[in-house]
Amino acid sequence: MTERGVDRIEGGITAPLGFRAAGVSCGLKASGALDLALVVADKPATAAGLFTTNKVQAAPVVVSREHLKRSRGRALAIVANSGCANACTGDTGLEVAREMAAEAGRVLVCAAERVLIASTGVIGVQLDGEKVAHGINEAKKVLRREGQEDAARAIMTTDPFPKTSAVEVRTESGSFRVGGMAKGAGMIEPNLATMLAFLTTDAKVPAPLLRRALAEAVAESFNAITIDGDMSTNDTVFVLAGGASGVEIGDQNYAALVEGLKEVSRDLALLIVRGGEGATKLVAVHVSGAASADEARRAARTIAGSLLVKTALHGGDPNWGRLVAAAGRAGVAFDLSRCSVTIGPVVLFDQGVPYDDRAPDAATVLRERDIRIEVNLGTGGPHTATMWTCDLSADYVRINAEYRT
Amino acid sequence: MTERGVDRIEGGITAPLGFRAAGVSCGLKASGALDLALVVADKPATAAGLFTTNKVQAAPVVVSREHLKRSRGRALAIVANSGCANACTGDTGLEVAREMAAEAGRVLVCAAERVLIASTGVIGVQLDGEKVAHGINEAKKVLRREGQEDAARAIMTTDPFPKTSAVEVRTESGSFRVGGMAKGAGMIEPNLATMLAFLTTDAKVPAPLLRRALAEAVAESFNAITIDGDMSTNDTVFVLAGGASGVEIGDQNYAALVEGLKEVSRDLALLIVRGGEGATKLVAVHVSGAASADEARRAARTIAGSLLVKTALHGGDPNWGRLVAAAGRAGVAFDLSRCSVTIGPVVLFDQGVPYDDRAPDAATVLRERDIRIEVNLGTGGPHTATMWTCDLSADYVRINAEYRT
Repeated sequence: MTERGVDRIEGGITAPLGFRAAGVSCGLKASGALDLALVVADKPATAAGLFTTNKVQAAPVVVSREHLKRSRGRALAIVANSGCANACTGDTGLEVAREMAAEAGRVLVCAAERVLIASTGVIGVQLDGEKVAHGINEAKKVLRREGQEDAARAIMTTDPFPKTSAVEVRTESGSFRVGGMAKGAGMIEPNLATMLAFLTTDAKVPAPLLRRALAEAVAESFNAITIDGDMSTNDTVFVLAGGASGVEIGDQNYAALVEGLKEVSRDLALLIVRGGEGATKLVAVHVSGAASADEARRAARTIAGSLLVKTALHGGDPNWGRLVAAAGRAGVAFDLSRCSVTIGPVVLFDQGVPYDDRAPDAATVLRERDIRIEVNLGTGGPHTATMWTCDLSADYVRINAEYRT
Repeated sequence: MTERGVDRIEGGITAPLGFRAAGVSCGLKASGALDLALVVADKPATAAGLFTTNKVQAAPVVVSREHLKRSRGRALAIVANSGCANACTGDTGLEVAREMAAEAGRVLVCAAERVLIASTGVIGVQLDGEKVAHGINEAKKVLRREGQEDAARAIMTTDPFPKTSAVEVRTESGSFRVGGMAKGAGMIEPNLATMLAFLTTDAKVPAPLLRRALAEAVAESFNAITIDGDMSTNDTVFVLAGGASGVEIGDQNYAALVEGLKEVSRDLALLIVRGGEGATKLVAVHVSGAASADEARRAARTIAGSLLVKTALHGGDPNWGRLVAAAGRAGVAFDLSRCSVTIGPVVLFDQGVPYDDRAPDAATVLRERDIRIEVNLGTGGPHTATMWTCDLSADYVRINAEYRT
């Protein structure tokens, strides 16, 4: 039992009561690997979604946005495929996406607009609707609570491992659960990039409150990670709230819902960074001493996104100069003479003065897989922000140069 | 003779009449390679400079900015060293920088404020003023017109080759020359990043006009290239105008001066990209159909900076999807259904429709060392912009992960 009333539990998207899942192979991946995931609520749930801000929006993004609007935030199921992004596929792609939801509606006996859809994989190739339809029918047959692991595998593309997380949240009005699964790898950047994340909860949450809570949770999790600065055409986060726990969320326990969603989202977001293409280290870039919250975020994002910083991290080089130079170009208030740089517990640069004799200690810290870096901007301001990033390896280049994603 | 009255000529910074140069080794580089460059005008010249916008400004940047201000845009010499950036070096670093200019003033018999200085190399290490002073004295002894090649070598850090360029500009009032040298490699990005570029001309140019012409030339050359998106603490562009050609620049031939400066600047800028760390290709990213000039530049910069685009270029993958996705996240007006993507002469994507049967032809284009990519944003707007970039290779990662710069 943790102090804040949130405990990690086993499982993923079906850890909350009232959800079943399945992952099947319907032939979209030439390898024959799992490529279609279905997540279904026992009863209609409230729902919310957040989507890529890329001007190029894949067909499933367009369709899911419409469905959430028409259904006023209610949904029964999520269908997602890997192997094809159904992006840049024109009117045909849009038709296939609508039919993907319609087929799930027929199979699950609900309106098409109660189905949310997502796709990930190659851009510019038409999605084979027949394969998807077949997959939906097959998945329906094997829906079960234990299907969450297969579902998490079915949305993977270049991900090295499936990503799931779940928590139990204790409140005065009782306990509820939040669970989720995600896929990432490559093109991960704030504002949701090549990332699918699906969350569920058995709390009972009015749709407007669910939307607000999702936005809060995403800001400090999926929107606080960066792998390569690119942003995809398909990024999607969905949450379904079924209510089977009997706990109703209102003003008095809204914070607990946010806490639960944030915990699972952050867990999944960090797994995405850890599974970043070619990544060998998870690095938390913490910025303090900023003049405003926005400037703290901008500085953290600039440092976390710097190729020179990310290659230095990969090489284990405690290069405070690159950190300071990245902070200096972030376009935020910054005072070098009061700036400090800390790697793990080692203060390498303080009040404008380098302590290079401590470099060997910092280099030892950098050999770890989990690293925390802090840059104090020296403005005397109280604002802080954290971004998570990974190192940039030659493997990243190899993966992205040699394979069409 | 070209149509526009600008002809490439042999040589570099001493191609214009009235300038001499030298490059010597003063022990700043452990390897014993050339590490101090001196460029001297026969008579006091007008001068202008542009500097990094990084909040962390190296000592030589601070000092040169002061000198240009105090001298009201007049200078006799430029001294530059490699091997040490004299950045993040506090008050001591500032003293050493002032002394570097003062020593050159003593040796050349001019006021310290008539000397412009620059440094490049490791950040956070004190510059050895004695070695620099020794170098200045040695360089003075070997100043000559043929010294330009040594000077160009003396400012190199990880650059694979020296970078020089020169042109002759024909106007109705006579001919004048523009020459220059530069160093780059790594950390190159718009707004001047880890780049030193020194230009000379034998035109006679009032200081205010020279400042304006330099800004115009830099906008479409040094500020239109990107290697890794980082920006250094030391970036500097200087221009000296001596007047030995007898051609006076005024309103009537101002455009010819800009043309000459732009030609040499672009030449040097493209050499910097070509010499980018691990770079194997020079790629011109041309954006058309933008709603405004600023949006054209932003889209070109986003595409040129995308790691997924740069790795695809490295792998020779005609991945229009990554180009379109990068344009889509640039935050500019964009219409996918009217967008087109052209690699070399091959139209891969047109009016929202992919032509993947042409991919083999595009792949052939991508095997070249010089590549032109065009993305039409499809807004129907008339605005265009070009950014130059290089591919991202595993070598880039290796260079930056393994060596402290």
